[in-house]
Amino acid sequence: MSTPHPSLAPYTVPSLSSLGGAEDEALIARLRHAIDTKTKPLGSLGMLEDIALRVGLIQQSLRPVVRRPVIIVFAGDHGIAAQGVSPFPQAVTTQMVMNFLAGGAAINALSRAGDIELEIVDAGIATPLAQASGLVDCSVGPGTRDFSLEPAMDAVQLAQAMAAGAQRVAYHAALGTNTIGFGEMGIANTSAAACLMSRLCNLPIDSCVGRGTGLDDAGLAHKQAVLGAALARHPVSGDPLTTLATFGGFEIAMMTGAYLAAAQARMTIVVDGFIATAALLAAHALVPQVLDYCVFAHASGETGHRLMLDRLGARPLLGLGLRLGEGTGTALAIPLVRAAAAFLSEMASFESAGVSERTEADNHAG
Amino acid sequence: MSTPHPSLAPYTVPSLSSLGGAEDEALIARLRHAIDTKTKPLGSLGMLEDIALRVGLIQQSLRPVVRRPVIIVFAGDHGIAAQGVSPFPQAVTTQMVMNFLAGGAAINALSRAGDIELEIVDAGIATPLAQASGLVDCSVGPGTRDFSLEPAMDAVQLAQAMAAGAQRVAYHAALGTNTIGFGEMGIANTSAAACLMSRLCNLPIDSCVGRGTGLDDAGLAHKQAVLGAALARHPVSGDPLTTLATFGGFEIAMMTGAYLAAAQARMTIVVDGFIATAALLAAHALVPQVLDYCVFAHASGETGHRLMLDRLGARPLLGLGLRLGEGTGTALAIPLVRAAAAFLSEMASFESAGVSERTEADNHAG
Repeated sequence: MSTPHPSLAPYTVPSLSSLGGAEDEALIARLRHAIDTKTKPLGSLGMLEDIALRVGLIQQSLRPVVRRPVIIVFAGDHGIAAQGVSPFPQAVTTQMVMNFLAGGAAINALSRAGDIELEIVDAGIATPLAQASGLVDCSVGPGTRDFSLEPAMDAVQLAQAMAAGAQRVAYHAALGTNTIGFGEMGIANTSAAACLMSRLCNLPIDSCVGRGTGLDDAGLAHKQAVLGAALARHPVSGDPLTTLATFGGFEIAMMTGAYLAAAQARMTIVVDGFIATAALLAAHALVPQVLDYCVFAHASGETGHRLMLDRLGARPLLGLGLRLGEGTGTALAIPLVRAAAAFLSEMASFESAGVSERTEADNHAG
Repeated sequence: MSTPHPSLAPYTVPSLSSLGGAEDEALIARLRHAIDTKTKPLGSLGMLEDIALRVGLIQQSLRPVVRRPVIIVFAGDHGIAAQGVSPFPQAVTTQMVMNFLAGGAAINALSRAGDIELEIVDAGIATPLAQASGLVDCSVGPGTRDFSLEPAMDAVQLAQAMAAGAQRVAYHAALGTNTIGFGEMGIANTSAAACLMSRLCNLPIDSCVGRGTGLDDAGLAHKQAVLGAALARHPVSGDPLTTLATFGGFEIAMMTGAYLAAAQARMTIVVDGFIATAALLAAHALVPQVLDYCVFAHASGETGHRLMLDRLGARPLLGLGLRLGEGTGTALAIPLVRAAAAFLSEMASFESAGVSERTEADNHAG
């Protein structure tokens, strides 16, 4: 990472504690015992038991709680939108930010339904808002450059974006948040995410490109051609920060910084869909331990998301065919994380409830 | 159904309005339009859009709400438990009811986490509780008879159970509940459910029998043998009520009555796992329209549940590998139903939010 501009908050990639190693062995054993002696058949809460173990490990507690859960939506524009890779005009990014602030978007309804705090951040939209009460201004600029022609951002902008993401996480950590997710809005950001995926997973672009918000066959072919040519223009780099600066959006880089900061703050991170997972790929390439703090909300309907999840060894909680972004999958999954923490913290054990365990003598008979 | 005992509340199978027919065509068109013009890419909320449509149709409203959601857990004992078909002793049914009342079971923790009302009903447990504050007494008797020897209950008991289920639903309807689910507790009730499934779906018993709360291979083989012999003892009946009386539990029959009453009250019914779906099979055999009011919470880890769901043409919301019962899958799915109603009721449309739709001119370009 090159030196940041002196007037900007410098950004340093944090180092993270890994979870589940030798130093956690005793806690893991205690967590497994607690889960296994709850008044229920062994293993009968399925994936919820895995989530409970992870959240207990993150919080280093046999009685974890989901406290003040937050979704931060980062919005930014993309120069690549000029290449006609999305069926929606770029103005929609700003219009949707206004919709978020007015409470009328999907993420507003789903966050309210799930009792989740919501914050909207201007990471760098093209058309600044005149009236924007409630919008957190972290703008790095009026959208990225067109990466089919030149790198999307420079190293200074990248550092500024990542530091801003970390700063937003710190803000919520100070308010007591221990569970967080990141959503995004940015016309053409599936294009940025697909190129990041192609480079960070070393996969051909065609397996990374999907229909985004709804391309037809001709639109999909055009998107593949544009992104293939864009990738050919930029040399492969072994440095994830260079890759992120080349193809990323300001909102994606901000999410990458936010993931690393959330893990450092020992939060449970509930990872959303295609764009959010692309940002996590960059975070993971920088500091692999970030995955220890992640729960995966859902498998998106966007082509490529399953491949990303496989690469990260992730088992998503939901499979509802969502392909909306904004953090909507995370908003639906946080109640499941809350339920996982609740069963571990609140359920009685066979012993404490006076419930008989399996009859060992009769076990051969069923 | 034979004449009920005069001293008991009589039970009559209700008739139900079907949904989605010609008389609902205009409403369906308006619901689809409302869903499709929300500020999101078309179809991008996946299965949540199907749930929103169904809930809107049930509530006959473009702005449905999930109001005072309730899970009723029906507990009952089973004579077939004497045949060693479960690894847990029968006393566990009563012990778990005490655990429910003390707030220490999985369904307590999950209902609290999901902001769902919880009611515990004694449908007919073997050991009455001395101290049982909060338990709703609908007991039909101290457990069913052993259906490997004789029918589990008689027609009077069946009517009493079904009427009690309907009565509990009416109680909650009067308090404003419009979304409901049913859970159960009863040692050996996977055996009852498997036999009901075998008869109502016309499937060989071995494809209906699973490990329940955790049988080993020998236990599973024993359970299959016991249930195969039990089925052979009772002639096949074309009358679902006779089948339900022969193999059902009091808690299962109560759930069957509750499903039909909930549909009649135009509630959204969130269907739980293996036992709960077996009770629905009986309700469906009696009045097929009950399915129009159902949302399926999850695909259970219990063998046979997927087969039941396929038979009902059901697409479950969750696939977390749960196999616990008690209504736990329903408790996890109700927040998704709440989110579906919320997006339909609360989201802005492209027009109302001033958000641009797809650029038709550029559509060829993507």
